[in-house]
Amino acid sequence: MRYDFGSDNTAGMAPAALDALVRHSQGPARAYGGDEVTARAADLIRQRLDADAEVRFVFSGTAANAIVLSMLARPFEAVLAHHAAHICTDETGAPGFFGQGVGLLGLPGFSGKIEPETVQAWLDEPEVGHRQPPAALSLTQATEYGTVYTEEELRHLIEPARARGLRVHMDGARLANAAASGFDLRQIARLGVDALVFGGAKAGANCVEAIVLFDRTLATRLDNRLKQAGQTASKGQLLAAPMLGLLESDAWLTGAAHANRMAQKLARGIATRSPFVLAHPVEANAVFVRMPEVTHAALQAAGWACYRFDDGSVRFVCSWATDDATIDEILDVIEGLG
Amino acid sequence: MRYDFGSDNTAGMAPAALDALVRHSQGPARAYGGDEVTARAADLIRQRLDADAEVRFVFSGTAANAIVLSMLARPFEAVLAHHAAHICTDETGAPGFFGQGVGLLGLPGFSGKIEPETVQAWLDEPEVGHRQPPAALSLTQATEYGTVYTEEELRHLIEPARARGLRVHMDGARLANAAASGFDLRQIARLGVDALVFGGAKAGANCVEAIVLFDRTLATRLDNRLKQAGQTASKGQLLAAPMLGLLESDAWLTGAAHANRMAQKLARGIATRSPFVLAHPVEANAVFVRMPEVTHAALQAAGWACYRFDDGSVRFVCSWATDDATIDEILDVIEGLG
Amino acid sequence: MRYDFGSDNTAGMAPAALDALVRHSQGPARAYGGDEVTARAADLIRQRLDADAEVRFVFSGTAANAIVLSMLARPFEAVLAHHAAHICTDETGAPGFFGQGVGLLGLPGFSGKIEPETVQAWLDEPEVGHRQPPAALSLTQATEYGTVYTEEELRHLIEPARARGLRVHMDGARLANAAASGFDLRQIARLGVDALVFGGAKAGANCVEAIVLFDRTLATRLDNRLKQAGQTASKGQLLAAPMLGLLESDAWLTGAAHANRMAQKLARGIATRSPFVLAHPVEANAVFVRMPEVTHAALQAAGWACYRFDDGSVRFVCSWATDDATIDEILDVIEGLG
Amino acid sequence: MRYDFGSDNTAGMAPAALDALVRHSQGPARAYGGDEVTARAADLIRQRLDADAEVRFVFSGTAANAIVLSMLARPFEAVLAHHAAHICTDETGAPGFFGQGVGLLGLPGFSGKIEPETVQAWLDEPEVGHRQPPAALSLTQATEYGTVYTEEELRHLIEPARARGLRVHMDGARLANAAASGFDLRQIARLGVDALVFGGAKAGANCVEAIVLFDRTLATRLDNRLKQAGQTASKGQLLAAPMLGLLESDAWLTGAAHANRMAQKLARGIATRSPFVLAHPVEANAVFVRMPEVTHAALQAAGWACYRFDDGSVRFVCSWATDDATIDEILDVIEGLG
Repeated sequence: MRYDFGSDNTAGMAPAALDALVRHSQGPARAYGGDEVTARAADLIRQRLDADAEVRFVFSGTAANAIVLSMLARPFEAVLAHHAAHICTDETGAPGFFGQGVGLLGLPGFSGKIEPETVQAWLDEPEVGHRQPPAALSLTQATEYGTVYTEEELRHLIEPARARGLRVHMDGARLANAAASGFDLRQIARLGVDALVFGGAKAGANCVEAIVLFDRTLATRLDNRLKQAGQTASKGQLLAAPMLGLLESDAWLTGAAHANRMAQKLARGIATRSPFVLAHPVEANAVFVRMPEVTHAALQAAGWACYRFDDGSVRFVCSWATDDATIDEILDVIEGLG
Repeated sequence: MRYDFGSDNTAGMAPAALDALVRHSQGPARAYGGDEVTARAADLIRQRLDADAEVRFVFSGTAANAIVLSMLARPFEAVLAHHAAHICTDETGAPGFFGQGVGLLGLPGFSGKIEPETVQAWLDEPEVGHRQPPAALSLTQATEYGTVYTEEELRHLIEPARARGLRVHMDGARLANAAASGFDLRQIARLGVDALVFGGAKAGANCVEAIVLFDRTLATRLDNRLKQAGQTASKGQLLAAPMLGLLESDAWLTGAAHANRMAQKLARGIATRSPFVLAHPVEANAVFVRMPEVTHAALQAAGWACYRFDDGSVRFVCSWATDDATIDEILDVIEGLG
Repeated sequence: MRYDFGSDNTAGMAPAALDALVRHSQGPARAYGGDEVTARAADLIRQRLDADAEVRFVFSGTAANAIVLSMLARPFEAVLAHHAAHICTDETGAPGFFGQGVGLLGLPGFSGKIEPETVQAWLDEPEVGHRQPPAALSLTQATEYGTVYTEEELRHLIEPARARGLRVHMDGARLANAAASGFDLRQIARLGVDALVFGGAKAGANCVEAIVLFDRTLATRLDNRLKQAGQTASKGQLLAAPMLGLLESDAWLTGAAHANRMAQKLARGIATRSPFVLAHPVEANAVFVRMPEVTHAALQAAGWACYRFDDGSVRFVCSWATDDATIDEILDVIEGLG
Repeated sequence: MRYDFGSDNTAGMAPAALDALVRHSQGPARAYGGDEVTARAADLIRQRLDADAEVRFVFSGTAANAIVLSMLARPFEAVLAHHAAHICTDETGAPGFFGQGVGLLGLPGFSGKIEPETVQAWLDEPEVGHRQPPAALSLTQATEYGTVYTEEELRHLIEPARARGLRVHMDGARLANAAASGFDLRQIARLGVDALVFGGAKAGANCVEAIVLFDRTLATRLDNRLKQAGQTASKGQLLAAPMLGLLESDAWLTGAAHANRMAQKLARGIATRSPFVLAHPVEANAVFVRMPEVTHAALQAAGWACYRFDDGSVRFVCSWATDDATIDEILDVIEGLG
């Protein structure tokens, strides 16, 4: 089976990430995140976001999102999120586990984007003791369906939510792809996001994501919280080094830009060489295609792993590692099945 | 500050671990642990333990221990463990977090070892509804104080516990050091341990530990459990590769044997060249020394990080990376302070 | 404001319940449920269900349901339930709190009843690690919309679920109303329900519900579980006495039969004397009426508390305490608004 | 078996409590605590404490304590309490369950009282990420060993704790007995207690305790919190009525004063008529006696339930219901065994 387009997790480590890991792989270094590599990687993230923030590195996006949400909403409260958000559909209920039953309210919206009217409807709902009222808004940038919120769109979601006292979480597992697509990272703090998960794995690192807390009051005893949650790296420099490598070299962004270009190429190829229709605008690194089950099955039978999503379309994901030849290869296959 | 003896987590990656990571760092590979590297590393662990078992790789020992304990004891039950065990003193209450309030009953015992009489006393305690009765026994091999249980000692702890229906967990963060000290790994399954945490980080990997379930009935929906707990690596081959490298090359064991020898050398040096007394038998890779606070402070002031433990002694840990010269160096310093 | 039809929780204690409480209100009695009153009430429940079972009395239906579900599904699993079930909409996420994040999958279905096809669709869904697979089926009898499952309907839901290894929970907050409507209580155990919440409060007791475990293997250390969950009555006889009174006198059933008759009368009156349409069949003690918001507001303004439900209809609930005169009174008001 | 001295939970309902329950037992009343009875009972508690506070009634002291502690300390933090406190020894780990793993640090101290030096030692402990630092101090008034803190003693415990940012919880399961012993209830708020559990059950109610939050910022969405935790009474007036009856009639205090006098009489009797020694000062309603196991066994064999505590002494508890004749009766038995 070929996993090239199955996920952006199927790629390995980008050269800049691997080089940094090798370079910083030897000790002795202070354990548990007190090392220099960790400190420098955190600095570079703050710099890229142009904001002061508490930064910690953890092992998985699932944990990062769930831990952050447990800071923003209590067990008897809920989080507003798109119903197709990763936290709703792909993390096995982790927010409820880390958040002791915190609720998720899945909102509709085209192509993975929440709409202001839907949020407003929830904000207008009278509070009652027997339900979990929303305490936080979770936004995914780039979205699960490969689209990218504009600054304007984010503002219209965040402002009314904050006005009603909600906290704001951004799942940035594919933040690099959003940035490469033109989203200005400096707006995240300015728009009023309280906590960001800054993605590493899909950008070419191994398993590392950064928790970024713009509201530092959330960070009291953060190290205790992460340790208890099993998300403290004893060998902190090894966790942070690939992220440092990606940021120092700018491969974090250039790799994502490459992935986005490959997705554009794939999308154009499908549009011009096959009868299949794109399900969503291609603004980041994923291409969603409406194809009959028989075609999907034939693709898989031909050895190409790719998955059908809840909206009925089939997803193809590109990464920093995708090359032109592989795009051509799968386009030939798809054309043949058309 | 020099962190050479502060912890075995201050060392970086052993060459065999790093080589394997580099070798297996490129994709595309099946995501979420469905890859070949993960499968082979699991096979090598089963082989080394000479037992059938379900094996999964996770990011931290804290998570591994806490998740395993949540399988063995329910929230209204408790776990018997040495009061100095890592789960009791160094994991920020993670068993209670993952186990929704599961209790820890800290038992006394010389040099980190639980004694059969103490366990028996708890087993003889009548059960009442308003307390958390013990449902599991947790053993650390090698112990937190650098000693190693003999097979005989383990049998006298495990047999009565199992006879009363308790499950058995082994924290093997330093299992390699126990093995290098002569402990026969094949006895773990035979003695009736239900679940083992097989250590990687302290043995020279980056942050990776294996959960080994000898009782496969514990493993139903294990992948869902780990995903929810934030312990599933999207890029599974990158998590397992360093462990694979250590096991294929046998550096897992030879590195630990080296660490143990360095600890012996350090212990002998302290015994012969200083007035300070060893607090515990040196059977693995740690040396505990009774020294006045002024000496400890002077050592730290001289730039050597080392920590005072709950028993009042100061710990020095060796690893696969410790070399003779550094031992000589610190012995000179200690002699000077004597 | 008049709360007569706002809920069946607005009634006080039925005479039989109050009498028994007064009669058994004096000690000394063995604390924590070890008393005679508790034992006899449990016996009468087993007798009425014609089944062996472990029985415990707790303070609230929310707790009873959530605790039972935490026995049937683990945090990384989910419970299938009607989307309008009390556990989904009216218990502030209690199943997730007691069940450490256990998922709720809300199924559609007319008038509060789940349909076999919907359950089957979930049973046919392939399991994946990143979602919470269903481990239990929760059924409400009578349903949240005042309908009552037939034995045949229950069989077609329970059998395929059990065949796939799911456990079955029945929320019987209004079980008395279902029984009074003709549902044979002896079928509950025979159909394969694992755990039942046997309602007391809505049947005329004060706040007491019974947890009934037909599968006694679920009951190990149940007293520890309940104590930890804050659901153990120190003065057990005072908790159980009202339930005992209702069961000994049969007021549990006759009160519910009265409530059902009052609901029939109210429904007939609305159908014949007003332009408003009933939203659901009236098979138990609740009447759901489609009425414009202006009418609902006028009713409330006239002093009658009644609530609009998620299906858009307005609910009127009768209880053991509802009398003919009050039915006539509200019918006059509704007719006037028609 | 006679349970007269087994616990103050073995008594039934005091007449004033029962009368009020009967009086307020009929509806219709607004459900879920929105009724008049609940409002008046809360007023009387605020009045007695001479303080503004948010007040809610719940079913059990275990739940009340655990829920309050979950407001004062987060999962990765700990609560300082006497090691013999009810929350540490008699609530099956409920604080960890409701508090998602929150830690309990059991402090020593004569006769159930914590000492300032011990608290100070914990406050001076440097914080580290791998342990749960104390975030709250829990005090029991009267204590588990039947003693009563003076205002001065409380001040010396609370002031340094608050100065370091800790929150303060008071478990007042036997607060009436402390008040009857001379403790001024108006000092609770003034001394800086954040949250109090105001006991009802042991004072003659059925199962009801009040959560009293002097710091109202703790109370946001409190009704959601309680509902999710299974501690909201659907028939609120039935839960609050016994407490209302006790407070209106002052039987809350006079009953406790009677219980205290009975304990004094029992203590004097034991001191003068038996060879057995009192283990603790008798300042509230419990008498702790050092007696050999053979005597304890003989007492039980003679039909008197009484329990040996962790300090090795045997406890006899008096209540509002204890009468002179029963004291004389058991004294005769004890004298006979002496």
